[in-house]
Amino acid sequence: MSELLKVASTSNPKLVAGAIAAYMRTDDKVELTAIGAGAVNQAVKSIAIARGYVSPNGIDLIVIPAFSVIDIDGDERTAVKFIVEKR
Amino acid sequence: MSELLKVASTSNPKLVAGAIAAYMRTDDKVELTAIGAGAVNQAVKSIAIARGYVSPNGIDLIVIPAFSVIDIDGDERTAVKFIVEKR
Repeated sequence: MSELLKVASTSNPKLVAGAIAAYMRTDDKVELTAIGAGAVNQAVKSIAIARGYVSPNGIDLIVIPAFSVIDIDGDERTAVKFIVEKR
Repeated sequence: MSELLKVASTSNPKLVAGAIAAYMRTDDKVELTAIGAGAVNQAVKSIAIARGYVSPNGIDLIVIPAFSVIDIDGDERTAVKFIVEKR
């Protein structure tokens, strides 16, 4: 099972990074979804920061970016999905 | 040696994806740099599309996001660097 984090353009990258790091210390995988350039940017920053958080634990984070269709109030929106795993 | 691609907010993700795919069929690594949310978004889309382009070649692309300081006309700007590798 993998955890799912929704990232917004207003998300704080350090806080999201902390959540990613916490999950990755116990789980093998976490997924982030982001809709729009601002949210995608925050998600990427969060993952870059999280890499530094878990590196001392010997964890080397890698990302697989993918597209995902999400239903928002009946509207289909294309989100970017980031699958964060351990190398 | 790794190739370096600069991605802008105006870059066409399918064209960038084609360039990534071409490099990854012969090299082990390509680096993308992006400054600003629009450029980061295009870079992520490009990599997601490139995964599909090289998948039939048995290549599974993964990404390592990092920060990079770039000098633009004497101004230091923080860019996002995407290191694209094969799993």
